[in-house]
Amino acid sequence: MKKIGIIVNKGKPEARIVARELLYLLEVRGAHVLLDENVASDVGRTELGARVEEMGQQADLICVLGGDGTLLGIARKLAGRSVPILGINLGTLGFLSEAEPDNLPHAVDNLLSGQYDLEERTMLEATLIRKGVTLGVYTAMNDIGIAKGSFCRIIQCAVYSDDAYVATFSGDGVIVSTPTGSTAYSLSAGGPIVAPNVDMLLLTPVAPHSLTARPMVLGGNQTIRVEVDAIHKEMGLSIDGQLGYRLEGGDQIFIRKSPYVTPLIKLKKGGFFEAIRTKFQGEWE
Amino acid sequence: MKKIGIIVNKGKPEARIVARELLYLLEVRGAHVLLDENVASDVGRTELGARVEEMGQQADLICVLGGDGTLLGIARKLAGRSVPILGINLGTLGFLSEAEPDNLPHAVDNLLSGQYDLEERTMLEATLIRKGVTLGVYTAMNDIGIAKGSFCRIIQCAVYSDDAYVATFSGDGVIVSTPTGSTAYSLSAGGPIVAPNVDMLLLTPVAPHSLTARPMVLGGNQTIRVEVDAIHKEMGLSIDGQLGYRLEGGDQIFIRKSPYVTPLIKLKKGGFFEAIRTKFQGEWE
Amino acid sequence: MKKIGIIVNKGKPEARIVARELLYLLEVRGAHVLLDENVASDVGRTELGARVEEMGQQADLICVLGGDGTLLGIARKLAGRSVPILGINLGTLGFLSEAEPDNLPHAVDNLLSGQYDLEERTMLEATLIRKGVTLGVYTAMNDIGIAKGSFCRIIQCAVYSDDAYVATFSGDGVIVSTPTGSTAYSLSAGGPIVAPNVDMLLLTPVAPHSLTARPMVLGGNQTIRVEVDAIHKEMGLSIDGQLGYRLEGGDQIFIRKSPYVTPLIKLKKGGFFEAIRTKFQGEWE
Amino acid sequence: MKKIGIIVNKGKPEARIVARELLYLLEVRGAHVLLDENVASDVGRTELGARVEEMGQQADLICVLGGDGTLLGIARKLAGRSVPILGINLGTLGFLSEAEPDNLPHAVDNLLSGQYDLEERTMLEATLIRKGVTLGVYTAMNDIGIAKGSFCRIIQCAVYSDDAYVATFSGDGVIVSTPTGSTAYSLSAGGPIVAPNVDMLLLTPVAPHSLTARPMVLGGNQTIRVEVDAIHKEMGLSIDGQLGYRLEGGDQIFIRKSPYVTPLIKLKKGGFFEAIRTKFQGEWE
Repeated sequence: MKKIGIIVNKGKPEARIVARELLYLLEVRGAHVLLDENVASDVGRTELGARVEEMGQQADLICVLGGDGTLLGIARKLAGRSVPILGINLGTLGFLSEAEPDNLPHAVDNLLSGQYDLEERTMLEATLIRKGVTLGVYTAMNDIGIAKGSFCRIIQCAVYSDDAYVATFSGDGVIVSTPTGSTAYSLSAGGPIVAPNVDMLLLTPVAPHSLTARPMVLGGNQTIRVEVDAIHKEMGLSIDGQLGYRLEGGDQIFIRKSPYVTPLIKLKKGGFFEAIRTKFQGEWE
Repeated sequence: MKKIGIIVNKGKPEARIVARELLYLLEVRGAHVLLDENVASDVGRTELGARVEEMGQQADLICVLGGDGTLLGIARKLAGRSVPILGINLGTLGFLSEAEPDNLPHAVDNLLSGQYDLEERTMLEATLIRKGVTLGVYTAMNDIGIAKGSFCRIIQCAVYSDDAYVATFSGDGVIVSTPTGSTAYSLSAGGPIVAPNVDMLLLTPVAPHSLTARPMVLGGNQTIRVEVDAIHKEMGLSIDGQLGYRLEGGDQIFIRKSPYVTPLIKLKKGGFFEAIRTKFQGEWE
Repeated sequence: MKKIGIIVNKGKPEARIVARELLYLLEVRGAHVLLDENVASDVGRTELGARVEEMGQQADLICVLGGDGTLLGIARKLAGRSVPILGINLGTLGFLSEAEPDNLPHAVDNLLSGQYDLEERTMLEATLIRKGVTLGVYTAMNDIGIAKGSFCRIIQCAVYSDDAYVATFSGDGVIVSTPTGSTAYSLSAGGPIVAPNVDMLLLTPVAPHSLTARPMVLGGNQTIRVEVDAIHKEMGLSIDGQLGYRLEGGDQIFIRKSPYVTPLIKLKKGGFFEAIRTKFQGEWE
Repeated sequence: MKKIGIIVNKGKPEARIVARELLYLLEVRGAHVLLDENVASDVGRTELGARVEEMGQQADLICVLGGDGTLLGIARKLAGRSVPILGINLGTLGFLSEAEPDNLPHAVDNLLSGQYDLEERTMLEATLIRKGVTLGVYTAMNDIGIAKGSFCRIIQCAVYSDDAYVATFSGDGVIVSTPTGSTAYSLSAGGPIVAPNVDMLLLTPVAPHSLTARPMVLGGNQTIRVEVDAIHKEMGLSIDGQLGYRLEGGDQIFIRKSPYVTPLIKLKKGGFFEAIRTKFQGEWE
């Protein structure tokens, strides 16, 4: 009998209703449920309450009710746990969800009978070093962003791929992205769409001063090193656009594939291109 | 006999040497010189020292020794004075300079004999309004930027052209630019190059979330109103990328052509396209 | 009593039905109708049949039933006639239509009572010169395209703005566009969106070899001269993407604003931005 | 003792002089030379004359004197031969050359002593099928282009990745490119720069009608199928921009990695990024 975690973004409309329905569907089919402690009491099942970390240790798979942003945050917390995640979309259509509230019973049937594929999504590991000291090691599912603040016009990012000097990008900053992140911030900055299974790291300059600075697709086994310039005072490091750390001139950020991947549960075939077409509906074709 | 102001960016290499030579060339030809108070003592001519504001009142024309950035700052200070400005380039080639240290004697001859054209460059006026109160009115020569801070992923800018709703741009921000500014930050963000004489306002979204958000060329007589969204805490207003003011959600920024223009002294013919070709040398053709 | 022309793109679905309804609505309100000779017999009113040229001479205004493409072709034929045109959209939403089949009665009321604005759209005039001989003079509403054939990789276009050399663009070709054409082919090639009232000519290189070749906004009173290079055999000149002429190396194309404008009937306020938002719906905001 | 082929693009200036010097440098070091039959008599050594095919069978490695275009053509002819190729640059700097006429002696020393790396460059194989019949199978080193002719505005390319439908791109056409080709035509059309060692296929739409159609990085083991639309009469298939074949509506083009790779001789370290920086010199940094 499977142990299934349910994590809920309470900020989304219908979050509790869908959580309650999912809980019901799972339990009538005999599954054991661990319920996000944030909603356990709301749905009157305090005894099922669990923290994300506990789910990571105990659950066979985890359902995340929310949008892409919610799933990104949970994937970072679960990094290293290898627990398959199913995104159930609440609100705006995203790229990471595979089920909608409308088709929950069907999704639950497939989930419990094991009729799904796992797609292992690459994650990134960023190490921030200041004056020789490691200040932090961060895991990202979408991207690592290095950005100027709102008042400074230009930061300079000297970029290396392993030991080879790539270029110095002057501008609003640079993004290093996974295939998963290629449809997020990098796309806004002019980067290509990358299919999930391509082994690469995507380096996208943001509003680069030079017209010849272009998005670059680098080898997946490279370590990308970014050195930020000392002149400018207001700079930040962002993880999936959700966590932020202040940078100082001379800081070095080493970015490479994380040793961990996130296993996403795929209920549909050809889902990646379909998600893109749907997301860009009316525009693409 | 002409009264000529000399303004100097002391941070540039050779600034004093070139200032001294320019002073000499002007004086031997009988011109009366007002010398930037910052360098007057350095070149041993304290008696000529003057502030920018004094030059704006008294000088027939003003020479600015520095780069494009220096000239932008001076143009803002001189807004409304109608004093012709000659940019003399120190360091990196720019778009606004018309003379180089190497050809100073020739430039001075043309200057004093009136052999030059004046090109009136459009400026912008931005009014920042918070909760119905005008917080400031700013003049820009290149652009008005509305930008997210380094830690927040997206700001939302609802844009109106006079009373017509244009669109809401979600992303890193928006730039409203003059033709002069079209070769600066707007170009990095994907905007077109605009010839100096075109009567328009250029609206360029920066890293917009939507793939269909594109740079827009709006009528020169429009007032562009930008309302920034309340959710995000870290936002800034920047003037020519040189001055910055913190924004709050709900702030409105009204941007229109300034009543003032900056008269630039042009010593060359066809200079605009040549500057572009030279600046992008090796790449363009 | 007004004389109204009706022109119909018979290739569009419902063309005859809408034509018949429009005819009825106009006649019951006392208007005199000139009916496209292509459909006059289809709707059983051969006596109203007229050619586009006759309508241009006799009609007070002309309704065009079709898409943007249909309207472009008619506008070229009517150039110089100054007859106001109302686009009635059949099929895919466009930028030039102001009425839909669903709101015909309302549109006809406004039309006959004069409750509409006229928006004068700039047109282009292109003159093709080979070895000193003028081969043709063409009028366009959207754009003049100079393009490589499908088998040749690169053509070279040396571009001049009046007498000033701009640059030589190597690549798939260049587009010179009106504001109206800015939302057509130029947009696909990376050009900005230009509001209808801006006095400018838009020069957009297509897939340029150089990364620093960018769309350019040039003064509306300039004459743009393009010289195409002799090496390549397969090159074409296209007018609104609808008419084509073979080019040879050394050909010169002079492009400037046409002395004629096309008066478009505007029934809505703020229609330009609304059309863009609707066209890009789901993407823009 | 090594057998070395020398292939020469006679159209390049100094081609014969450099060929003669290279021949001399090789022979004095004891190498056996096969000389391009096109120049063998020009340099008075008819007895060394050989065709490219013979060199492919007999030579240990082949030097190509010319530009990137010359090398592309030779690589296609040598596909399947696994003979290492050294590009010696005549004229404009390229991405594929590793030696200059100025440093020939040094290059020859390294060549004969085996002091070089081999970089295996992915090639493409395109199969053109019309009404079920295979019309041709083509090998490309840079890219396969599917393009409209100069007179037709839009072609429609329905694209599939293995069996998954990707999208239908309406516009000037699409490019499928190797990493090597990412710095060629695809870059002009807005594609990213791809490092040579990334296992992917790059799909870049050219001037796409839809603003949301973007360059895509697809898995290296995918077969990309493109179906071109029947309406338009003038379409072409191009191989490295050098060979062209007419397409008809309904044609299918299957594109995948070729079973063959081209081994390029690398004399420098970190050469890829350096080539990019040099090529875009003055712009990048």
